[in-house]
Amino acid sequence: MTDIAMIEAARLRLDGHVRRTPLLSSPFLDEMAGRRVFVKPECLQHTGSFKFRGAWSAISALDPAVRARGVIAFSSGNHAQGVALAARMHGIPSVIIMPFDAPRMKIENTRAFGAEVVLYDRAKEDRDAIGAQLSQERRLTLIKPYDEPLVIAGQGTTGLEIAEQAAELKIDKADVLVPTGGGGFLSGISLALAAKAPGFSANPCEPEGFDDVTRSLQSGQRERNASMSGSLCDAIVTPQPGEITFPIMSRLCGTGIVVSDDEALHAVALAFSRLKIVVEPGGAVALAAALFHGSQLGPDVIAVCSGGNIDAEVFKMALDRHPL
Amino acid sequence: MTDIAMIEAARLRLDGHVRRTPLLSSPFLDEMAGRRVFVKPECLQHTGSFKFRGAWSAISALDPAVRARGVIAFSSGNHAQGVALAARMHGIPSVIIMPFDAPRMKIENTRAFGAEVVLYDRAKEDRDAIGAQLSQERRLTLIKPYDEPLVIAGQGTTGLEIAEQAAELKIDKADVLVPTGGGGFLSGISLALAAKAPGFSANPCEPEGFDDVTRSLQSGQRERNASMSGSLCDAIVTPQPGEITFPIMSRLCGTGIVVSDDEALHAVALAFSRLKIVVEPGGAVALAAALFHGSQLGPDVIAVCSGGNIDAEVFKMALDRHPL
Repeated sequence: MTDIAMIEAARLRLDGHVRRTPLLSSPFLDEMAGRRVFVKPECLQHTGSFKFRGAWSAISALDPAVRARGVIAFSSGNHAQGVALAARMHGIPSVIIMPFDAPRMKIENTRAFGAEVVLYDRAKEDRDAIGAQLSQERRLTLIKPYDEPLVIAGQGTTGLEIAEQAAELKIDKADVLVPTGGGGFLSGISLALAAKAPGFSANPCEPEGFDDVTRSLQSGQRERNASMSGSLCDAIVTPQPGEITFPIMSRLCGTGIVVSDDEALHAVALAFSRLKIVVEPGGAVALAAALFHGSQLGPDVIAVCSGGNIDAEVFKMALDRHPL
Repeated sequence: MTDIAMIEAARLRLDGHVRRTPLLSSPFLDEMAGRRVFVKPECLQHTGSFKFRGAWSAISALDPAVRARGVIAFSSGNHAQGVALAARMHGIPSVIIMPFDAPRMKIENTRAFGAEVVLYDRAKEDRDAIGAQLSQERRLTLIKPYDEPLVIAGQGTTGLEIAEQAAELKIDKADVLVPTGGGGFLSGISLALAAKAPGFSANPCEPEGFDDVTRSLQSGQRERNASMSGSLCDAIVTPQPGEITFPIMSRLCGTGIVVSDDEALHAVALAFSRLKIVVEPGGAVALAAALFHGSQLGPDVIAVCSGGNIDAEVFKMALDRHPL
């Protein structure tokens, strides 16, 4: 099980390879939200999302002989790119299983990072089964996207940075909002905050219709999404909370916040005009929650923008729908 | 005259108020450029540009009784916003003189930061004369955009950060490319690098038709631009190099690099797709120089992206003209 010692060990392995993203803010966003909103822009991380942290954490911890055979991963795109680049930086091969309807840029980038890409249909095929079979055939190590303690530990390094950066700003109480798919990012951040910033509460943020984590936290058991496609927030659409991540989230996290696709696009447009960062819709749901669903939140909110791998057409749509 | 002691003193005054922007990179950009390209994204600075540094430096150094009467500045937009926000954070009034054809967002933001905005025609009127008159009438302190030692010292804090961040990456020799208008940013960075990273060379980057600094460094005297409008790179269009900045640049800087508006737009599009940052055309000329005019540069280049205050229409044009 991931604990704070594992997260701190991951940080040592990541040191010098991962970016320490800054904490951003804008008086315009504070005014809109009616509270102070800080943004942790993991879209500025290597490969454009926090996923590089978990990928590096898992790959760097492998036995060198095992690592040399290569790794395999399944992902709608951000975990794919994180694993592909971390593998290339370790000088090992990678195979990535991606849904055929993932954003074009994510598929192309994953290939450009040197990975062999295998496409599948997320409505009809089981990516876990495909991954298990390929990893067995080629003796590759499967790097799971969230249900893997070493990946959770890597994502948790973001929480260590948030705790330190908030302390520099003399903030000792805050709501930390995290875009959530399978729950690896939220679990890691929650574990880090519980140890380093106990006054902080971490909450999942999800798109409407794909709010499995929010419903699971309410019911006390792992609920499934009815569908696996149809959201602009592709990065955080997963079937259900992870087996490993769900108990962590149940123990440590507050109530989930659900936002519409249009609110996510509005947050994309505001991140462009007010923060000068490029965020994808799934990566913007926490900022959308802070701006449009903040009534239950305290005076200081830290919204994580988890990724920025957005196609130009979707970005232009966000700017057109939500002019300044 | 600005020296390294003034820059270090400015840093102490800025500490806790200014953002330490990270150093970004992308393997895709490295491949395009044929060398390592690091980007210092000052578009992520408060108000979306490095200008906040100089504004804070100058305002924070004023005698409190003088400061309380307020400040005045003239600017196409980024200095305006920097002064307006720094004034508001000091609790003092500000008057900003802006060209009427400055980007709408810059004018609106300057007003939103609490400044009184006075518009003028940059083809017909002399902004220096307007500024001098108003500052006299109202006993406001004029915060010049570049020809002011305290402003240069504030901009130079960017150079201190570059020197430290490059040292962390074990880089001891690099070409530092800087978008250049009047030369305050380049002068400050050059002074900081000369003291802290003597293996580094700093070069001005300018848009075609507005290459006064490049021509001045060649001729050895301050040359003027033929026109003051007609460039997409509005942020860095100034009549000629500064009186104070020109001797500093002559002593410390390498040859200028001139890029086309279309190359600047291409750099805007690549900063979107590869770095996940929002850069305005004038702020992107150094990245454009690194990517498209790098043949004379060494193996490591640090391109400063100086600002991100771009209207959505111009941004969409960049993405349309330069699809990935």
